[in-house]
Amino acid sequence: MGNQSVTAPKGFLAAGLASGVKVSGKKDLGLLVCPAGATAAAMFTTNKITSAAVQVSREYVKSRKTYAVVVNSGNANACTGKKGLADARTMCDLAANRLGVEPVEVLVASTGIIGHKLPMDKVTAGIAQAAPLLSDSPEAGLAFAHAIMTTDTRCKQAYREVKLSRATVRIAGTVKGAGMIGPNMATTLLFITTDVAIGKPLLSKALAEAIGGSLNRLTVDGHQSTNDTAILLASGMAGNERITGLSANYRKFLAALTDLCTDLVHQMALDAEGATRMFQVIVKGAATKADATKAARAVADYPLFKCAVHGGDPNWGRIICAVGSSGVKLNSDKLSCKLDGLFVFRNGTPTDFNVKEASRIISQRQFVITVDLGVGRESDFYYGCDLSAEYVRINADYHT
Amino acid sequence: MGNQSVTAPKGFLAAGLASGVKVSGKKDLGLLVCPAGATAAAMFTTNKITSAAVQVSREYVKSRKTYAVVVNSGNANACTGKKGLADARTMCDLAANRLGVEPVEVLVASTGIIGHKLPMDKVTAGIAQAAPLLSDSPEAGLAFAHAIMTTDTRCKQAYREVKLSRATVRIAGTVKGAGMIGPNMATTLLFITTDVAIGKPLLSKALAEAIGGSLNRLTVDGHQSTNDTAILLASGMAGNERITGLSANYRKFLAALTDLCTDLVHQMALDAEGATRMFQVIVKGAATKADATKAARAVADYPLFKCAVHGGDPNWGRIICAVGSSGVKLNSDKLSCKLDGLFVFRNGTPTDFNVKEASRIISQRQFVITVDLGVGRESDFYYGCDLSAEYVRINADYHT
Repeated sequence: MGNQSVTAPKGFLAAGLASGVKVSGKKDLGLLVCPAGATAAAMFTTNKITSAAVQVSREYVKSRKTYAVVVNSGNANACTGKKGLADARTMCDLAANRLGVEPVEVLVASTGIIGHKLPMDKVTAGIAQAAPLLSDSPEAGLAFAHAIMTTDTRCKQAYREVKLSRATVRIAGTVKGAGMIGPNMATTLLFITTDVAIGKPLLSKALAEAIGGSLNRLTVDGHQSTNDTAILLASGMAGNERITGLSANYRKFLAALTDLCTDLVHQMALDAEGATRMFQVIVKGAATKADATKAARAVADYPLFKCAVHGGDPNWGRIICAVGSSGVKLNSDKLSCKLDGLFVFRNGTPTDFNVKEASRIISQRQFVITVDLGVGRESDFYYGCDLSAEYVRINADYHT
Repeated sequence: MGNQSVTAPKGFLAAGLASGVKVSGKKDLGLLVCPAGATAAAMFTTNKITSAAVQVSREYVKSRKTYAVVVNSGNANACTGKKGLADARTMCDLAANRLGVEPVEVLVASTGIIGHKLPMDKVTAGIAQAAPLLSDSPEAGLAFAHAIMTTDTRCKQAYREVKLSRATVRIAGTVKGAGMIGPNMATTLLFITTDVAIGKPLLSKALAEAIGGSLNRLTVDGHQSTNDTAILLASGMAGNERITGLSANYRKFLAALTDLCTDLVHQMALDAEGATRMFQVIVKGAATKADATKAARAVADYPLFKCAVHGGDPNWGRIICAVGSSGVKLNSDKLSCKLDGLFVFRNGTPTDFNVKEASRIISQRQFVITVDLGVGRESDFYYGCDLSAEYVRINADYHT
């Protein structure tokens, strides 16, 4: 398969190691570097409380060139006041110093527990140790991918290639889950590298569109964290004719980027805290797109339905309850619901469906729910996952 | 203590029995009767999908007098189409027939699984058997309270007396929980009897006010069911001077009614599905009342925080995260958070609080969280409870 990590696109180096921020001794510090300087785009949480790293990266991403991203896991450096903000800037300073660039040319991201001061002695030593390990090997990319994990049980990577005229463009991404995943955010921590040559405004537009149709459509527990950050770095080394407008090549690049993000969102959902299966809720027949989105999200976020999914139990009444509770316009005489291809509720009345078949569908690792509101032509979707006792165990014991 | 059930106020009879709708053989059918005719007020779910009983009772509560309420548990008779609507009307017809009144003078309520046809043979036989059992004894009131339960582990009753001039007015209520409890609804099934003499519009006003400040402030899983119904029946037999305006006696009655509802809301929260403790989230310093409500609800609904509460873990960062995620106006340099009297976060910075003391507070059966948004003078509150592995077990296995 070759290299499928963030070092696969031309022009990127990575490193990841255990600095000691995580008491478990697992990897918790990562560096991602583009020695020639990358064009950068980023999206951040819309939570009104943001981590120090988000505040700093929001400012630094405006630079014309970005040479590196420094990341730590195990500590969110959020709700840590002025000291936390100074620490995040110091992380950029330290990485910039090692690489001989300006601090504003380095981005920073953090993930982990909120409200604890970052152990800067460990972070400082970690950055110093990581710099000489930088490499374009698949192992280095994988080490970086491991360094961003928190409660993830699996490392998440995706890779795509796309031909733009005669040039092959590579795109690689890594993302961490696995809780505090709500929509309308830049989605947890996501790092994407590509060697496409593209202008900065178009790169930002592509990132926003790709995430809007993929990672922003996943809800695990309905809340966005204080730290959500998505960063896309483009080295421009693929040899393609630089994309400067909404051309066919832009659309091809966007399609590949969206496909990569959709791959990552499936990996995230199936590795969400305690999750054993995922589902897509498609709402159609809505009066407005906003109604379709709202109703789909209401189902995906509904704890009672998520529990039923965990139990492999086709309790479709909870789907209808969630849709009705969301307050969207609907026609109760035309309202219908399907599990995969099986109608369980049609025109406001339960069907005589085969319960065994419904149970089989809802017990799959992935399935689709389709709800028709019966009032219009708009549609939208959301991804969700089951709610398990394991989710509770993970989150009841996280702090101590 | 004497009679503290719904038969305690003058003029009420009750009965409850097992009709066989519940396969467990537990009580599932109740009758509540005011032979002299009661003034009735009711509130219903704002879910756009409503049970057949809600549709019928919404219409029938407009009658000048109400003689009875017939209730079944174990089957919600929701999403059951035209047949379900006919079945709900039949329940009123049967009870009216037994009592020699008009069907429109009987209210109906159902609770249980959605989307299954009501076994009308059992319901019909149950109503016939219940009528001769009607009694004003505490046992009869208790039997009625048991007949409305679903996943409740305890029967919930509350009783208050209030002196209006020289007359003693009695108020008694029973409520069922324990999941699908979201705000902005009339709150699951709630039946209150009183012997106060009062006009119908004022009785409706009192019910709305009492519930608005108590049961509508509880969220267990953020969704309102299709069946939520609160019914308040007033026999007028207490001998008080009939309340016809917003007098001192109205306010005293309202205070007692609100106090009774607050008692019931605590019983509900502590018996919510799988819950082991409850908390109140007070948000102050908000720019608007709506912001205060929204932020308080965001914390009370946040699965990650509810899990932390279950673990007795003072993970206050999740409180701040939920507040920030709710989108309300706040000043991050003035934002503060207390657990009972203990500041854990003050003016945007963590305090050096005693972790053991914080753990002790959050491990109590009841505690208070206070969040100051630091931007205004408005405040509001919500009640919530912890999220346990038991909640998942109950709801993963409910259907089959």
